[in-house]
Amino acid sequence: MTGAKHGTGEESVTLDLLKRKMDEFAKERDWEKFHSPRNLLLALVGEVGELSEIFQWKGEVPKGLPDWKEEEKTHLGEELSDVLLYLIRLSDICGIDLEKAALRKIELNALKYPANPCKGSSDNGGD
Amino acid sequence: MTGAKHGTGEESVTLDLLKRKMDEFAKERDWEKFHSPRNLLLALVGEVGELSEIFQWKGEVPKGLPDWKEEEKTHLGEELSDVLLYLIRLSDICGIDLEKAALRKIELNALKYPANPCKGSSDNGGD
Amino acid sequence: MTGAKHGTGEESVTLDLLKRKMDEFAKERDWEKFHSPRNLLLALVGEVGELSEIFQWKGEVPKGLPDWKEEEKTHLGEELSDVLLYLIRLSDICGIDLEKAALRKIELNALKYPANPCKGSSDNGGD
Amino acid sequence: MTGAKHGTGEESVTLDLLKRKMDEFAKERDWEKFHSPRNLLLALVGEVGELSEIFQWKGEVPKGLPDWKEEEKTHLGEELSDVLLYLIRLSDICGIDLEKAALRKIELNALKYPANPCKGSSDNGGD
Repeated sequence: MTGAKHGTGEESVTLDLLKRKMDEFAKERDWEKFHSPRNLLLALVGEVGELSEIFQWKGEVPKGLPDWKEEEKTHLGEELSDVLLYLIRLSDICGIDLEKAALRKIELNALKYPANPCKGSSDNGGD
Repeated sequence: MTGAKHGTGEESVTLDLLKRKMDEFAKERDWEKFHSPRNLLLALVGEVGELSEIFQWKGEVPKGLPDWKEEEKTHLGEELSDVLLYLIRLSDICGIDLEKAALRKIELNALKYPANPCKGSSDNGGD
Repeated sequence: MTGAKHGTGEESVTLDLLKRKMDEFAKERDWEKFHSPRNLLLALVGEVGELSEIFQWKGEVPKGLPDWKEEEKTHLGEELSDVLLYLIRLSDICGIDLEKAALRKIELNALKYPANPCKGSSDNGGD
Repeated sequence: MTGAKHGTGEESVTLDLLKRKMDEFAKERDWEKFHSPRNLLLALVGEVGELSEIFQWKGEVPKGLPDWKEEEKTHLGEELSDVLLYLIRLSDICGIDLEKAALRKIELNALKYPANPCKGSSDNGGD
């Protein structure tokens, strides 16, 4: 978990790692002045639009996207990443600890929607 | 990096950890049948809408949200998390390795937008 | 076209009519100060989110929504209207003549995507 | 109101006119098979993304967009129109009378948010 997972000696991909990379990226390009909360939010909405365009004329698509070409999946990975990176940057600029918030939200969701006792936890192992 | 960062003995928050938690969450509630790619995409759009509502009547807001009440920031963290969690789930259901895709996208962005050599890297230390 | 179409002596529903109604609505409530372009844009995104929520867990749905309850259709009409009304207001506040722009865009689309000569125009009558 | 407003002998631009034009457009190109409710909704989200991109790095912008170039305003008009046209098409395909729904929604809003009696109606003339 701490190591060569992605075959490049890359560290494990935490939200904090991506946050630091985005911060460094902005600093190196003198882009911090553009990264206000609402600018980043609108950039995020723009990327969600590009993500939606990938799916817009396809009708329902099955899990795993079995019929998609490799290049379509690569493109999808890029758009998903764009949304993610702006989301992480927006959180950082707003002073929100997204790691902490996400773990807390999962706990809140678990309280709001209690698990079906006949399902899951015994046979999927959890983590 | 492996440990008690969030003061609860919680592991470091990787995208893969959140992916596994979302998968377990869906399995325990028998929700996998609802988690098709386009269902999740529309759920993501719904959460982006809720995120936008937080900012909609505020005009420009400064970095760090200095004038926001603690409860507003908590609410913001929840909406940011909802977007994140659906994004991670959508990626998983599509068979996209979001960790790998995000690292690759940052590299592509660095090629597309070369850093200003007079800025940043020497004085912010990078990582 | 001039008259009692909606059974209430209501005039025909032009974009300009809705624009005037929205302008009057804002003036009467002293809301003009909130109606900046980006505030309205984020409000629009919020409403698009609510529209998406209606469709999010349904899988594909057929044209005409034959299985939807009347109250679901009423709710859908409200969310579609919210998007429309913010869009018209945003256009107005930006100084864009949306009637003119929409007619022009249809013409541009027709140039970009020429009609299939074997389809449509002879047997559907056009207008 | 019935006539040559746009200098081309064009009729007044009602929502129903745009709906008929969109329907004819789709028929002539054999595109009706693509125009399912969720396909159109995702296309709408895509266009909202393009609209957001126009505003994303600008910070707050004043009403009327005084500093925008003519070509930027033209582009904005096109993106606003794209959102409008998909919204109208989506409503039509869902069997929703958007004219009726929009007028009703304004009335509902007026009940929900009563006008400030000291403001507006006496001095702005209404319509």
